[in-house]
Amino acid sequence: MLNPLEEVWQPLRLQVETQLERCLNRLGSGCPDRLREAMAYSLLAGGKRLRPVLVLLASEACGGTIEAPLPAACAIEMVHTYSLIHDDLPAMDDDDLRRGRPTNHIQFGEAMAILAGDALLTLAFEIVANEIAPAETAAACCADLAKAAGSVGMVGGQVVDLEAENQHECSLEHLESIHRRKTGALLASSLTLGARIGGADRDTIAIFEKYGKSVGLAFQITDDLLDRTGNPETIGKAVRKDHTRGKLTYPALLGVEESRRRAENLIDFAKQSIAPLGDRGRRLEQLAEFVLERDH
Amino acid sequence: MLNPLEEVWQPLRLQVETQLERCLNRLGSGCPDRLREAMAYSLLAGGKRLRPVLVLLASEACGGTIEAPLPAACAIEMVHTYSLIHDDLPAMDDDDLRRGRPTNHIQFGEAMAILAGDALLTLAFEIVANEIAPAETAAACCADLAKAAGSVGMVGGQVVDLEAENQHECSLEHLESIHRRKTGALLASSLTLGARIGGADRDTIAIFEKYGKSVGLAFQITDDLLDRTGNPETIGKAVRKDHTRGKLTYPALLGVEESRRRAENLIDFAKQSIAPLGDRGRRLEQLAEFVLERDH
Repeated sequence: MLNPLEEVWQPLRLQVETQLERCLNRLGSGCPDRLREAMAYSLLAGGKRLRPVLVLLASEACGGTIEAPLPAACAIEMVHTYSLIHDDLPAMDDDDLRRGRPTNHIQFGEAMAILAGDALLTLAFEIVANEIAPAETAAACCADLAKAAGSVGMVGGQVVDLEAENQHECSLEHLESIHRRKTGALLASSLTLGARIGGADRDTIAIFEKYGKSVGLAFQITDDLLDRTGNPETIGKAVRKDHTRGKLTYPALLGVEESRRRAENLIDFAKQSIAPLGDRGRRLEQLAEFVLERDH
Repeated sequence: MLNPLEEVWQPLRLQVETQLERCLNRLGSGCPDRLREAMAYSLLAGGKRLRPVLVLLASEACGGTIEAPLPAACAIEMVHTYSLIHDDLPAMDDDDLRRGRPTNHIQFGEAMAILAGDALLTLAFEIVANEIAPAETAAACCADLAKAAGSVGMVGGQVVDLEAENQHECSLEHLESIHRRKTGALLASSLTLGARIGGADRDTIAIFEKYGKSVGLAFQITDDLLDRTGNPETIGKAVRKDHTRGKLTYPALLGVEESRRRAENLIDFAKQSIAPLGDRGRRLEQLAEFVLERDH
């Protein structure tokens, strides 16, 4: 039986899946077949679609439709997917398995994986610029997304993360600053894009941003916990890999119990942040709780 | 002594250099130092700055200022630079030398080179979205740039180029279709972005696009000719590398003389395309001639 969140999540996820496929099909014959295949391999590999669903829920919570933010939802998922493809490369995290299947470079070769990532990142901006209206919102969304994905956001986080590998002395502040950039920034931008498209004013956008940053950090902690304690069959990738590799994780720094407590506090804070939204924030509240309870 | 084109080109190039540095400095402390260093290493490595100068000249030819299109000029150079960094990677063209210096991955390692490229591509869109006004123009420029850089443009061209390596049977049409995407699309977008920002109407934008595509293809032919016949010290990279590697080139397919004739025809066509602009197109005419005469 589906719980109330899943009843909402499932149809939204299906709308996102359909729209993602359409985005790739629309590239037409100008896109080399093998490239489209490599893009589709990772983009249409399933997954929770957490970020695009957040875009849609944020827009809805602001009184917007589900349709208007769909292009932005797809764009965020493209940026997320590109980051996974590049992070998995031999020069980076060197992962062979992702969501239970060979990673992109194992399947298509390294050159194609790099290019498929580049193409997905680029397509994300094309879609937001072309399909979000009015133009003011499109430009603001492009700017938000780029800031979150770029050198002060996600890419910057990956750099600091790689630099920190095997540095056994690391403060909690440092670990948090990595993950605020690496996971938190893009996740928060899912919320702000949705809110912008839903017509939110500046103060309301700030509420969504606060919620997104907390949920993003909590999500990273539960990710680390799943790597430490999870079941590889449920998760679809190798576990204890970060731990074995000497990568900084919350459980390594704080222990499992304290890490879990920290995630709980962040989720409480996220829920408080959206309290001003009242009933319209109910779905986002449930979603925050899901992040704590997830097993994959 | 500077020729008339160089008298215009030099100060424009200096404005672009200054602005590119500012763009990187503005990233502030949120951007990890080592990442900024890697981005700056390739972005501020000199070069002709052909694409950004085209942006400025196109805007000026439409009656616009030099200042308004500067952010777009920087963005195009960032996209161009990212493509060079990624193309040079071991998994791609595996080049050690670029503009007389070690390539980015030789200097900073492969992981950082991939990430510096990603960050430059992302920053390009942030700058256009934030700094081009009005918002309609910003969104249209983001869309143009993304289309030119993405899977039906530059990235698609690189894919087809890699696939074509060592395929000794290749038609002229196929070679042209590679270069129309790999070099022509981004070069043409330099012109359309400049024209948009200069306030051109749709028909005028189309004139600039036609000019850009022809100049872009001619530029690629002269690039191939320089690889075949040029002086490595003037060019700053290894020559005859494409040739030795069995990469498709115009001289390999058509011979040196016929390739040169083809480039001349394309430049004639480019000059005819902008004839309707009259005197305002004079600089672009000179620039087209430069492409034929360049020795680096």
